[in-house]
Amino acid sequence: MGKECTTGRVTIPTDVDVVPETLELVKRWGADAIRDCDGTDYPEELKKVDAKVYATYYTTRKDNVWAKANPDEIQQMYIMTSFHTATKGELSIHLMEHLYPDMLKVNSRDDITRWWEVIDRTTGKVVPVTEWSYSEETGDVTIKPAKAFHDYTVSFLAYIMWDPVHMYNAVTNDWQGVEKQITFDVRQPKTKEYSKKRLRKFLESHPYVDVVRFTTFFHQFTLIFDELAREKYVDWYGYSASVSPYILEQFEQQVGYKFRPEFIIDQGYMNNMYRIPSKELMDFTAFQRREVTKLAKEFVDIVHEYGKEAMMFLGDHWIGMEPFMDEFKSVGLDAVVGSVGNGATLRLISDIPGVKYTEGRFLPYFFPDTFHEGGDPVKEAKVNWVTARRAILRKPIDRIGYGGYLKLAVQFPEFIDYVESVCKEFRTLYENIKGTTPYCVKTVAVLNCWGKMRAWGNHMVHHAIYHKQNYSYAGIMEALSGAPFDVRFITFDDIRKNPDMLKDIDVILNVGDGDTAYTGGDNWTDETIVSAINEFVYNGGGFIGIGEPTGHQWEGKYIQLRSVLGVERENGFDLNKDKYNWEEHTHFITEDCKGDVDFGEGKKNMYALPDTTIIRQIDKEVQMAVNSFGEGRGVYISGLPYSFENSRVLYRAILWAAHDEENLHRWFSSNYNVEVHAYVKNGKYCIVNNTYEPQDTVVYKGDGTSFNLHMEANEIIWKEI
Amino acid sequence: MGKECTTGRVTIPTDVDVVPETLELVKRWGADAIRDCDGTDYPEELKKVDAKVYATYYTTRKDNVWAKANPDEIQQMYIMTSFHTATKGELSIHLMEHLYPDMLKVNSRDDITRWWEVIDRTTGKVVPVTEWSYSEETGDVTIKPAKAFHDYTVSFLAYIMWDPVHMYNAVTNDWQGVEKQITFDVRQPKTKEYSKKRLRKFLESHPYVDVVRFTTFFHQFTLIFDELAREKYVDWYGYSASVSPYILEQFEQQVGYKFRPEFIIDQGYMNNMYRIPSKELMDFTAFQRREVTKLAKEFVDIVHEYGKEAMMFLGDHWIGMEPFMDEFKSVGLDAVVGSVGNGATLRLISDIPGVKYTEGRFLPYFFPDTFHEGGDPVKEAKVNWVTARRAILRKPIDRIGYGGYLKLAVQFPEFIDYVESVCKEFRTLYENIKGTTPYCVKTVAVLNCWGKMRAWGNHMVHHAIYHKQNYSYAGIMEALSGAPFDVRFITFDDIRKNPDMLKDIDVILNVGDGDTAYTGGDNWTDETIVSAINEFVYNGGGFIGIGEPTGHQWEGKYIQLRSVLGVERENGFDLNKDKYNWEEHTHFITEDCKGDVDFGEGKKNMYALPDTTIIRQIDKEVQMAVNSFGEGRGVYISGLPYSFENSRVLYRAILWAAHDEENLHRWFSSNYNVEVHAYVKNGKYCIVNNTYEPQDTVVYKGDGTSFNLHMEANEIIWKEI
Repeated sequence: MGKECTTGRVTIPTDVDVVPETLELVKRWGADAIRDCDGTDYPEELKKVDAKVYATYYTTRKDNVWAKANPDEIQQMYIMTSFHTATKGELSIHLMEHLYPDMLKVNSRDDITRWWEVIDRTTGKVVPVTEWSYSEETGDVTIKPAKAFHDYTVSFLAYIMWDPVHMYNAVTNDWQGVEKQITFDVRQPKTKEYSKKRLRKFLESHPYVDVVRFTTFFHQFTLIFDELAREKYVDWYGYSASVSPYILEQFEQQVGYKFRPEFIIDQGYMNNMYRIPSKELMDFTAFQRREVTKLAKEFVDIVHEYGKEAMMFLGDHWIGMEPFMDEFKSVGLDAVVGSVGNGATLRLISDIPGVKYTEGRFLPYFFPDTFHEGGDPVKEAKVNWVTARRAILRKPIDRIGYGGYLKLAVQFPEFIDYVESVCKEFRTLYENIKGTTPYCVKTVAVLNCWGKMRAWGNHMVHHAIYHKQNYSYAGIMEALSGAPFDVRFITFDDIRKNPDMLKDIDVILNVGDGDTAYTGGDNWTDETIVSAINEFVYNGGGFIGIGEPTGHQWEGKYIQLRSVLGVERENGFDLNKDKYNWEEHTHFITEDCKGDVDFGEGKKNMYALPDTTIIRQIDKEVQMAVNSFGEGRGVYISGLPYSFENSRVLYRAILWAAHDEENLHRWFSSNYNVEVHAYVKNGKYCIVNNTYEPQDTVVYKGDGTSFNLHMEANEIIWKEI
Repeated sequence: MGKECTTGRVTIPTDVDVVPETLELVKRWGADAIRDCDGTDYPEELKKVDAKVYATYYTTRKDNVWAKANPDEIQQMYIMTSFHTATKGELSIHLMEHLYPDMLKVNSRDDITRWWEVIDRTTGKVVPVTEWSYSEETGDVTIKPAKAFHDYTVSFLAYIMWDPVHMYNAVTNDWQGVEKQITFDVRQPKTKEYSKKRLRKFLESHPYVDVVRFTTFFHQFTLIFDELAREKYVDWYGYSASVSPYILEQFEQQVGYKFRPEFIIDQGYMNNMYRIPSKELMDFTAFQRREVTKLAKEFVDIVHEYGKEAMMFLGDHWIGMEPFMDEFKSVGLDAVVGSVGNGATLRLISDIPGVKYTEGRFLPYFFPDTFHEGGDPVKEAKVNWVTARRAILRKPIDRIGYGGYLKLAVQFPEFIDYVESVCKEFRTLYENIKGTTPYCVKTVAVLNCWGKMRAWGNHMVHHAIYHKQNYSYAGIMEALSGAPFDVRFITFDDIRKNPDMLKDIDVILNVGDGDTAYTGGDNWTDETIVSAINEFVYNGGGFIGIGEPTGHQWEGKYIQLRSVLGVERENGFDLNKDKYNWEEHTHFITEDCKGDVDFGEGKKNMYALPDTTIIRQIDKEVQMAVNSFGEGRGVYISGLPYSFENSRVLYRAILWAAHDEENLHRWFSSNYNVEVHAYVKNGKYCIVNNTYEPQDTVVYKGDGTSFNLHMEANEIIWKEI
């Protein structure tokens, strides 16, 4: 397969106590970059090593002297209390209830009558500022007169007195006696100027550093802890800790209307990713993108001025950077690095446009939770690598890397061996793939309220964390991350602006529960959307709905595109209609399944319309069905957690929806544990065994010819076309 | 137990070919009434028997000569076509698609531009009458211009050319060559006058008849058949076949606003019982109650004029009679008879106020489906009797009866024996109970949008028919039908009118899926309702929610009374909130359960608030939990299908919610298969074994003293207090 690259594209962590081991690994793993970590120091001896040196840089913390001297510019966040029921004409609500006392401090410095809001949640009405007051002594807001037996909440601003990630690290690793790092707000005038000088000082004092790894820019994703220091609220995409009166006044000026705390508080839902985003939230995120990227550019420019590269960590204080949105490119970052939890989070990094290179931080971290006696880091590494590899083969990151304490890793020689093989394999595949777009069978568009802003992050609450309510949908993202499709993420607004955009798409996917941002809610009451998609399907397009696609109660339907999907949800309203269509049919889509399809949580109460073809119903609840609409086709699936078999189910569903069953056997493996990817421009293709066992399969090439193949566990085989 | 009544309170069917058998049964069963049935004739020989004679009388059918001579006064109904998608600028919709052709005939006689409606269901807008037309030849409505890729429906009036119940009987019994009976509209002027004369003629020609059994009055509940003569739509409570332009013009005059077909069509949901009823529907049903009862009174008066009794069959053309509403009493009916499917349908009859007596028609019917070789009518009779007996012991009907072909029944001597014992048992218990209200432990109110209008009929689609979506809720009604509570059915409007009404209630129940009429939907956004119930509970009341009680998305909550119930539904919007409360606790409510509680369909995605006590969660989905709110208590249960064990669970839940655990052992059986009912005024109590096996139990009397008891299968034991 041509000359093998023996070095490069790998970053390793180091520390003062592992210098010889670092040098050994530089050689064995072919590492060409070395990094420090939170809690490690970069060794003097390695400053002149023949490798790039990365330095983590904390823009918003690790400078309590400044923070304490400028308490007015400490970063703030919006918090809503829980719901309190008045039982008489007066109600007091303690603002810090169930919040970790050292993390947050109520901001009563700014005008609370302007920046706080007390809301009667029984009526939804704002309580006039004359009818409530705040006591510094008790920390309570008192509503008087309160309406007896109404529920009230208080929305208020709080200073972040302990950086949430720092607190998380301290609590998780049981750091004792550590000074709590205050988060300062780099957007505010004094701190902005100071921070730029602070960066220059850092650059000047760290001449050996080649790459400044921003961890990160200015605003932390939403992360709060309760009174027991347990995580209380987390949203990896949350904007509620990116606020301050200073910023909000700018927002008001730019958008031309008055800010309300409720824009951020959102009834206490904090605009989580399942909420249909309001216009005001979208205005706010757009405003933050403009301002955050503008300021980030100033920091990046400074780094460049010193002849160094600027790398952004996709995490922590990354809010407002939005790597898939247009403003991001203008920052001029050299690189983005992020943690790789699975295929979808790999693509969350590798698909980022407008940077010179991307880097994935692989698992396991060299932390004691895995690297202890009896631990099996090789297993974790294998799972992580093989999972990520599927996605890398579609869109590679440019580099891989590891983090943590190297001295832990070197105690596991098998792990060192395994990662050595991973580094080699990565360099080979990168070499074979680079500069090409792999062969794409179809163009698939995931349609929801977020579009490219949340590309690959759909249904993600906190970076690849499992929830009972999300895995049956997130599985679609994971399947797509390694599948031979051109995947696009589009919004309803995209269609509104240009319905013709659908002409470039073969199959639309709509995935999630009804009345959420992932399926669209009342967007389906917009005739422009409905008729555009009806027309798209009628003229031959495919539409695949998972869960409660297009679900929103309106004009006699819950599943708004039920004429396309052929299914409806029984809400009780249709119980009087006799339903005779319950017979199951075998189908192209499930031909490779070995038994029952795993629908994950599935869905209750779905039934098929009379002309729909049911593939699977369980106890008269339809889990999979197909339907024709004009020249086009609809597919309904109740849920599809990630597995190799389900990935094949989705693959076949897309082909069937696109009316292209006859081209199934192109760059295809009969055994769904094995996948085939073709890089036509480079004249190469690979066959990859995604499992930890040997596999036998029939491999089909692009011309439909085939051959039998036996593969070792995890094996990847490269061939010339 | 005092003297045993050996005759009376029993009605039997007869026919010309079973005269001796009829006389034999009159003696053995102690029957004091004999009836004819649909398809039988009353024998000459029995006209002078010492028993009341019932005659079924069909007010709206069995007179095709009249119907054909007056086609303008044939009964009409509103129908909506299914949804059709326009694919170009013109769309034709065939009105009779998927309808049984002989049953309905499009009414184009009346002004279709006034009485029909074509609706763009993509936008919800009415299509102007200038943009559609109807062709008598094709039977199509053509919309031109239609908006491409919008969905359209047509709402139209159709004549009922084959009475739905007659058709059902004909199809089910495979009657050949039968003339299809047309339903005529007795409300319209010519037919009204004619029908009164027709009734007089019947009375004059049937002097031997003592009781005229109206089957029924004027309007059939909604029942439609498809092109294959299969049931297509059925709503035992549906009003859509009670319309005609003649009636609708009266409606307009009375309510003072213009009628729209959509009031009845309701997006195609036809105002089914799960829909939150619109103001217009409530106005319409009230109008119909006024008009139907007024006219029914005229018919009843005529019957009385001839010295006979008037009995109403609760079924078929009963729409507008609404036995639990105030207008009903004014009709002056002597009796109501109805079919008994279970305990709830027994109470649907026995609780009717304002008639001299009620009668239950028991199962099985003497039809060949049960009375054939190998059939087991005794088993069916036992199940029916024991099920109904629970409810009879709370509120007895005054008579029992049977229907069908007697000649079939007499071929099963064991059945004849069993029913003989049932008749004896019924007379004994009636004698012991009569004139008293049995001891009620608590007053319980079922709160929904229907209140007393749908008393005992909650979650009923078609007279006690099982649906996967209703049995977990209907089970509550069945449990209550035989439980020692004063059960009330109240509406949100009742509370709005007089919040003090809650002072008479111990425990409120709210049962069903969110956003349905059974839980209340946006009634929970009304501060009057919310604060009244919050106050009720806070001051010591109980609130039990089943399914998705108070469920409606509003101001940061889905379960609107979650502060009372202690549970919330995870819609995705709360996924970012960490949930630590998952521990299960043993509890008073489930102390008698032998294993896992059967929650029926249960509920997905319910979680508990931090202070809630979870009794049962399955895979992190809460199925049962309790909570305190002020002095009051909330209980959440995900579903509770009817069983003896679940009946006990509900009993204990009510006692716990009412803070009255210490009085559990009053008129109580330790074994939940056995129940105890006390009739204090009559100085009697009974112990009843609801199962078909012997049972042992400890019986607790009203003073808390107890004794052991062994009971035979099905046994009922009467004792003096």
